[in-house]
Amino acid sequence: MSHATPGNPGEPGSLGRPGSSGSPGSSGTPERVYLDNGGRAPWHPLARQAFEQALADGWADPRRLHAEGRRAARLLDGAREAVAAVLGARTQEVRFTPSHTASLHTAVAAAAAARRRAGSAVVVSAVERAAVLHAASLASRAPGGGGAAGAAGEPGAPVPVDRLGRVDADAMAAAVGAPGVALAALQHANGEVGTVQPVGAVHDAARAAGVPLLVDAGASVGHVAVPDTWDLLAADPADWGGPAGVGVLAVRQRVRTAPVGPEDEDPWAPGGVSVPLAFAAAVALQAVESDRVAQEARRRALVERVRAEVSRIPDVEVVGDPDGRLPHVATFSFLYVDGEALVTELDRHGFAVGSGSACTASTLEPSHVLAAMGVLTHGNVRIALDRSTTADEVERFCAVLPDAVARVREMLGVGGL
Amino acid sequence: MSHATPGNPGEPGSLGRPGSSGSPGSSGTPERVYLDNGGRAPWHPLARQAFEQALADGWADPRRLHAEGRRAARLLDGAREAVAAVLGARTQEVRFTPSHTASLHTAVAAAAAARRRAGSAVVVSAVERAAVLHAASLASRAPGGGGAAGAAGEPGAPVPVDRLGRVDADAMAAAVGAPGVALAALQHANGEVGTVQPVGAVHDAARAAGVPLLVDAGASVGHVAVPDTWDLLAADPADWGGPAGVGVLAVRQRVRTAPVGPEDEDPWAPGGVSVPLAFAAAVALQAVESDRVAQEARRRALVERVRAEVSRIPDVEVVGDPDGRLPHVATFSFLYVDGEALVTELDRHGFAVGSGSACTASTLEPSHVLAAMGVLTHGNVRIALDRSTTADEVERFCAVLPDAVARVREMLGVGGL
Repeated sequence: MSHATPGNPGEPGSLGRPGSSGSPGSSGTPERVYLDNGGRAPWHPLARQAFEQALADGWADPRRLHAEGRRAARLLDGAREAVAAVLGARTQEVRFTPSHTASLHTAVAAAAAARRRAGSAVVVSAVERAAVLHAASLASRAPGGGGAAGAAGEPGAPVPVDRLGRVDADAMAAAVGAPGVALAALQHANGEVGTVQPVGAVHDAARAAGVPLLVDAGASVGHVAVPDTWDLLAADPADWGGPAGVGVLAVRQRVRTAPVGPEDEDPWAPGGVSVPLAFAAAVALQAVESDRVAQEARRRALVERVRAEVSRIPDVEVVGDPDGRLPHVATFSFLYVDGEALVTELDRHGFAVGSGSACTASTLEPSHVLAAMGVLTHGNVRIALDRSTTADEVERFCAVLPDAVARVREMLGVGGL
Repeated sequence: MSHATPGNPGEPGSLGRPGSSGSPGSSGTPERVYLDNGGRAPWHPLARQAFEQALADGWADPRRLHAEGRRAARLLDGAREAVAAVLGARTQEVRFTPSHTASLHTAVAAAAAARRRAGSAVVVSAVERAAVLHAASLASRAPGGGGAAGAAGEPGAPVPVDRLGRVDADAMAAAVGAPGVALAALQHANGEVGTVQPVGAVHDAARAAGVPLLVDAGASVGHVAVPDTWDLLAADPADWGGPAGVGVLAVRQRVRTAPVGPEDEDPWAPGGVSVPLAFAAAVALQAVESDRVAQEARRRALVERVRAEVSRIPDVEVVGDPDGRLPHVATFSFLYVDGEALVTELDRHGFAVGSGSACTASTLEPSHVLAAMGVLTHGNVRIALDRSTTADEVERFCAVLPDAVARVREMLGVGGL
């Protein structure tokens, strides 16, 4: 791929400097294998096409009254309708937001605020994304709220998970049924380790308690069937081959929400959503949904191959539920290995993988997900297969990984262990 | 322009339905004249090109450690550097946000929160955008805050403007110098009526009082020279020919801010920014800046022509400062006219214009800007010229407007007045 040289007449070369686009061997040559497709995958080809078309027809502000505005509004409505069909929602239940993180934060805040009379506690699992944990903590500290998060086991503390990353459904059901609960939040599947959560059982308990359940399906939509056991559901276009810069939030009509954040015509996307991004997200979702089952089986087989191969490397833990899991994600913790060093070593050999907490890799902080599971939090690597990932690429990864691990261990002086 | 038919294999036709793309005569034919380029203008051609290139090279998450992530990070850094150069800021002072509205809301909240010890009042003009007014009101109501907005003239009330929309600089200076002020916010120019504000004088007063000044330059950057009299500055890519879905916020290094909103690696854009959008925004800004002076003079002459022509229509007020104004915006209030009806009438004849409050046209609420100016809030129309708007298009608009106004007045039964 050529790097960006916009040919700008004003200050040629000040953007996209020649030669700054990557060192030799690390640029996007065909040999490069990209296995970090969780949370931000390359755009689906149809998404690019849809974006171009929507940019031509939907660049105007969809809130305006003239023909151009109405045309943009129709494209946006079409995008909502298409997303709703895949999510099993009504069109009017679907909103676009600025990002998946924004969806989660706004959903927790808005749903909890509307239930202030019932309570302020937000019941969460210990392996939710940071945005959910943070928003839940803020909501619990709202005026009148006594449900501040405590230490593990205390009332208000996140519900623990087992060593496979699976939440204790009974404990979560009990927490949801306690008095003073405004909202519960449980991910459909964990994007870091792939473990699928018992959202059906938790939704049953939440419904019995009259508590709405937010399901974070950001790591699963586009990869496995979408559950219908939710009251609010957040999904991430950037994870399914759509663009970053737009998120999806579905809220059942029966669920009340109170506006939070900037006063705006669109409280879910203050300032308005980019119609071309939303349209591209919807087209990508339709496209991946059309052959999802085949892709699910194909990628599941590749992931099982990787998990089996990696388990032969000495001193490794293959992380996450072996059965109830996402089809495209595999995670490993290597003893005597620094995760960042292993990512860098693999990168030098043409393989891009994720490390540590997939969501906060650059902070170099240990993953709260792995910590909650009781798994080694360092020496961690995650791969997430794209729909375009080939069996050959997976084989090549399996072939280079043992030596890469050995070299990193050698650098750390533990090669002989 | 053809409408969007993504050719999606999954559910062909469910997105971008044939025939739904606009009634005959209202599609993007060459005859169509689009004069609503404020806040969301068509993309600059170089922005499209930059987006394509950045999508090929910068689709990955810039926070990741591998080559693809680092390449995206370099593109993002290049975009920040280019924007910083135009804004007169340092690269590290520039952040991307999800939208201009988000920039304003976060800037007010984060800057006010960091100055809690000094006070909680946020001094604003009466014609700031709704996001600023709302965030200022929230900050003033923060724990310990006594600076809640009161009625006009009371302490804490927005600082009034004159009939031209220009803020009373002395009153604003006095308000900024009062005790208990955390922050002041003044727009560089008003996007609805074009009036340029005395940000230099107000910045002097704010600096003397030790109060940071947020300047909303969302309607001016790309059109006139950027002032250097600011402590925080927000700018809007969608207004200068860049994409929607991304905003710009510059914060001088000396200004302290306290994080608000979701806990995230990037508190200014939780969930991360779209690198292609940010890169396209930066390239568009460089491009418009490269011939800004020529475009400013050309569009100013066209706007003066329109203002002169429209002033001949009976019972019209040409709104905003005739001299200290944006070069590309012209606003009119027609007596005995419904603004929405006039927009629709002009739309039928091939002209797209804005109506009422440009920011909240679809709510059909009267503009708080026009109300603060003491100008007729109904029967209002705004035009904003794009860089591509031609003299011929402006002539045609001037030719059709008198009859359109007369027809709307006739429909309302006031044609004979």
